[in-house]
Amino acid sequence: MNLVRLKPMTENAQLVVTLSCPDRPGIVHAVTGVIGESGGNVIQSQQFGDSDTGTFFMRVEVDSPKGRAPIDEGLAHVAEEFNAAYRVDDLGRKLRTIIMVSREGHCLTDLLYRQQTQGLPIDVIAVVGNHPDLAPVAQFYGVPFLNIPVTRDTKAQAERQLLDLITSEDVELVVLARYMQILSDEVCRAMEGRVINIHHSFLPSFKGARPYAQAHERGVKLIGATAHYVTADLDEGPIIEQDVTRVSHADSTPDMVALGQDVERRVLAQAVRFHAERRVLMNGSRTVVFSR
Amino acid sequence: MNLVRLKPMTENAQLVVTLSCPDRPGIVHAVTGVIGESGGNVIQSQQFGDSDTGTFFMRVEVDSPKGRAPIDEGLAHVAEEFNAAYRVDDLGRKLRTIIMVSREGHCLTDLLYRQQTQGLPIDVIAVVGNHPDLAPVAQFYGVPFLNIPVTRDTKAQAERQLLDLITSEDVELVVLARYMQILSDEVCRAMEGRVINIHHSFLPSFKGARPYAQAHERGVKLIGATAHYVTADLDEGPIIEQDVTRVSHADSTPDMVALGQDVERRVLAQAVRFHAERRVLMNGSRTVVFSR
Amino acid sequence: MNLVRLKPMTENAQLVVTLSCPDRPGIVHAVTGVIGESGGNVIQSQQFGDSDTGTFFMRVEVDSPKGRAPIDEGLAHVAEEFNAAYRVDDLGRKLRTIIMVSREGHCLTDLLYRQQTQGLPIDVIAVVGNHPDLAPVAQFYGVPFLNIPVTRDTKAQAERQLLDLITSEDVELVVLARYMQILSDEVCRAMEGRVINIHHSFLPSFKGARPYAQAHERGVKLIGATAHYVTADLDEGPIIEQDVTRVSHADSTPDMVALGQDVERRVLAQAVRFHAERRVLMNGSRTVVFSR
Amino acid sequence: MNLVRLKPMTENAQLVVTLSCPDRPGIVHAVTGVIGESGGNVIQSQQFGDSDTGTFFMRVEVDSPKGRAPIDEGLAHVAEEFNAAYRVDDLGRKLRTIIMVSREGHCLTDLLYRQQTQGLPIDVIAVVGNHPDLAPVAQFYGVPFLNIPVTRDTKAQAERQLLDLITSEDVELVVLARYMQILSDEVCRAMEGRVINIHHSFLPSFKGARPYAQAHERGVKLIGATAHYVTADLDEGPIIEQDVTRVSHADSTPDMVALGQDVERRVLAQAVRFHAERRVLMNGSRTVVFSR
Repeated sequence: MNLVRLKPMTENAQLVVTLSCPDRPGIVHAVTGVIGESGGNVIQSQQFGDSDTGTFFMRVEVDSPKGRAPIDEGLAHVAEEFNAAYRVDDLGRKLRTIIMVSREGHCLTDLLYRQQTQGLPIDVIAVVGNHPDLAPVAQFYGVPFLNIPVTRDTKAQAERQLLDLITSEDVELVVLARYMQILSDEVCRAMEGRVINIHHSFLPSFKGARPYAQAHERGVKLIGATAHYVTADLDEGPIIEQDVTRVSHADSTPDMVALGQDVERRVLAQAVRFHAERRVLMNGSRTVVFSR
Repeated sequence: MNLVRLKPMTENAQLVVTLSCPDRPGIVHAVTGVIGESGGNVIQSQQFGDSDTGTFFMRVEVDSPKGRAPIDEGLAHVAEEFNAAYRVDDLGRKLRTIIMVSREGHCLTDLLYRQQTQGLPIDVIAVVGNHPDLAPVAQFYGVPFLNIPVTRDTKAQAERQLLDLITSEDVELVVLARYMQILSDEVCRAMEGRVINIHHSFLPSFKGARPYAQAHERGVKLIGATAHYVTADLDEGPIIEQDVTRVSHADSTPDMVALGQDVERRVLAQAVRFHAERRVLMNGSRTVVFSR
Repeated sequence: MNLVRLKPMTENAQLVVTLSCPDRPGIVHAVTGVIGESGGNVIQSQQFGDSDTGTFFMRVEVDSPKGRAPIDEGLAHVAEEFNAAYRVDDLGRKLRTIIMVSREGHCLTDLLYRQQTQGLPIDVIAVVGNHPDLAPVAQFYGVPFLNIPVTRDTKAQAERQLLDLITSEDVELVVLARYMQILSDEVCRAMEGRVINIHHSFLPSFKGARPYAQAHERGVKLIGATAHYVTADLDEGPIIEQDVTRVSHADSTPDMVALGQDVERRVLAQAVRFHAERRVLMNGSRTVVFSR
Repeated sequence: MNLVRLKPMTENAQLVVTLSCPDRPGIVHAVTGVIGESGGNVIQSQQFGDSDTGTFFMRVEVDSPKGRAPIDEGLAHVAEEFNAAYRVDDLGRKLRTIIMVSREGHCLTDLLYRQQTQGLPIDVIAVVGNHPDLAPVAQFYGVPFLNIPVTRDTKAQAERQLLDLITSEDVELVVLARYMQILSDEVCRAMEGRVINIHHSFLPSFKGARPYAQAHERGVKLIGATAHYVTADLDEGPIIEQDVTRVSHADSTPDMVALGQDVERRVLAQAVRFHAERRVLMNGSRTVVFSR
């Protein structure tokens, strides 16, 4: 493997650059200047300036014949000048991901299926369950399953185990795929902007634990789901994606659960794809999503 | 007019029957027995038994060669036997309707347009506005416009004027088409189940007065609207119809208002159509909607 | 177990009755009369009279305390009188089903997942593949996989094998879950109204073999999928369900394939559910779908 | 008016720049260089490189303190260097527009309503109808109505009158809002990329004259509409926007017409907004739509 890495530094690279900074003139020109000087080309790009927050956001896909180094170097200067936060990554690189689950498998099955056959760019290091029920699903897709039970007594220890795993495996993304436990503030902070949760409701409605029963009682005509980043403030993290589906008076609570699962898995997979493709930038308590 | 009414009793009639009662065996058979004995035929029908509330709901479109009388008579007996609430009406009859507005015209324009050209079965007796702004719209569609300003001092008098209008004109339906005043409990009770409101939000989210600003601040990816019957408990009346539309980070609050108006007018028109076609039956704090 | 079966014939049954006949007065009354005389109750029902074809359609869910026999008997008389086609079945009974596949697994995975966890009422007897690729998926869900390769030379023999399987296993439903072979007219006729196909396009558009490439070339903004009954006239069978999803200029043909797969599996699963719940009645080259 | 124009050259301008050219490195840098040198700032921007056609597309909203002149000048050089087609316009400037109609008013009413109250950036110079029916609608919104009947004998003359109007009034956009006549090749060529039509169907399906009747006969479960640029090849122009709505077996052809009208007016208004906001760039027989 190491020998393979000894290829010349100037090899071609396809990169994705994301950047945000206080909005002021010259930022796009500066970034594209870096690209141009290194002989690169912009494949696709989007920019957005939020007049509410005075923040500028940018995502660029770059074709760089001289590889990544000149881009990295140039951007470091630009970032300093514009007080920008930025990230350079290989376009299409799979994020090292942990999926956390409890007993419901619809989201897990969907994510693993999409990763296997639809090019969802995540590399699932492990599935972590507080129950052992979904081990066979992980096994079927060739992913290690780790059962970390969580009780009041073992919670601290479980979190420690999780953080160790995240550290030792260089985990970049944690997906809560109907994981019915609340992560501690410590984990939330350590992985800020890198934990995605699917909320079984159309936030900000029905925040509670039984959203479909609540929806049924209220007699709604649509139910929905929300994928969001996890913050210490439960259910209030920045929203990445939402969708709904139609229900009727004849749909019982179990019917709504089944219909809701469809929306949940679709919304979560879409959010994970947006995140993994570096399309989501944080804008305070909101997100900028440079969708295709 | 009276002379016209002297046509033979046996003339053909197309009727719509709606009925609800405690669920027990025999109700459909009894209703269709009435239809059959009078020589009538079922064009279309839907039934639903709600196991939660133990209530049975039915809507039947009937072709009755001997007219309405035998159906009315027969159903009176059935209703007594089954302790049923029922209603017989001419299929397609236009409901005598008042539309109430303030300054925003998108819902009013849409309802009047649909009534004029798309067969929305309402007969708009008057448009009532607490501001005079939309008088030209009413005038264009040939509907009387009544300006009834509402201030703290005149509120009681305005409500009296409204109730008088409802009584003197036999008004059957009041549509609040972005009417920015709250109806008194008296009007709500007097017209229970016959006042439809469009709520500029996807209830139960964002109940307040600035839903689009709230939605923008929260960074939602969908916005919606809810049409519901008005009850004394504001924004909590039985939901008739809901829908949503997609928004993005680049949509400002005004953008969301414009997108929201599209959803509002569509949802309100759909709800009015369902109601006027007798497709909506009350089921406690929920509705049964026998949509097509 | 056998002892339990020795309960009296009058045990309670939940049934679903579907019926269609030339439209004439009295049919609903006659059907509900049968139900009433046997002491049964209508849980839920829908009727529709198609004025184009003069055909009447009915679906009733019945709670029958005396079991199925009196309903069967009574309906036989009604059917004779009204020249009706009808079917009585246990409500929620799982249809004996074969799923046919080639190499793409998204629809198969989805159907098996829904059957296992979401109460999709099918009992999958076997998965039949003309390629062996998807055997592991069937195995994971505990369903026998039968590899029946199809070449020009073996086509007749393969079809014979399929028909034998259908007969010997009392198969009631065949689902073509991205099965890339055309069934012979013989199979189509033998299983008429009982073979459901998912077409990777929004019929009647893009009938050909490369719909997503065609869609991409045409620059469409939506792509869709169509589930329909298979008839001898390819891609022209009665439509059961359709849906679409949004695409943009930035979506390549592979992107569209992935997005299309989502719609395909959703539409196919919905169609299979409608069929298995006896909600679909044939109306010439169209369907009546009594959705919830 | 002229005096007003004598304001200093350095006044602030908000501009929208669109550009397309053969894809090669440096284009974004060159464009943003022009903006930067003139002291301007990028508010929002999107770029897309189509690997199929090797064409690069760009849309930039610019805040230019020194006004338009330096941007114009700079871009002229860039365009020469990169062989680019480009356009600079004031952001939000209303396009001088003619709306052409026949007898159905749903699209006209909707466009005029949106222009009046929702900031749809078009300045409607005139409504042209081959029938006089919709004159009152135009009048209500204070727009001149021109009745230009079209018969076999008068067709040439009518087209001449239209072209004269386009020329004399500097018309930039022609919207066919259910205009039931075919424009001559001459007009199509003269106004290429500036005539938008709403097709009452989900292209490429049901191209004929009676799409809803065809849709009803085929028993589809969705109907749609397509907004596209008009080319000499009827119904085959580049698609700008599409959408669908759900229909059922119980919907007659007239029901479908009403439902279809909702989709038509929504899709047409969206397409006109995209075009007027300079979000649509031509990519051969397809479009690039830089939606928000």
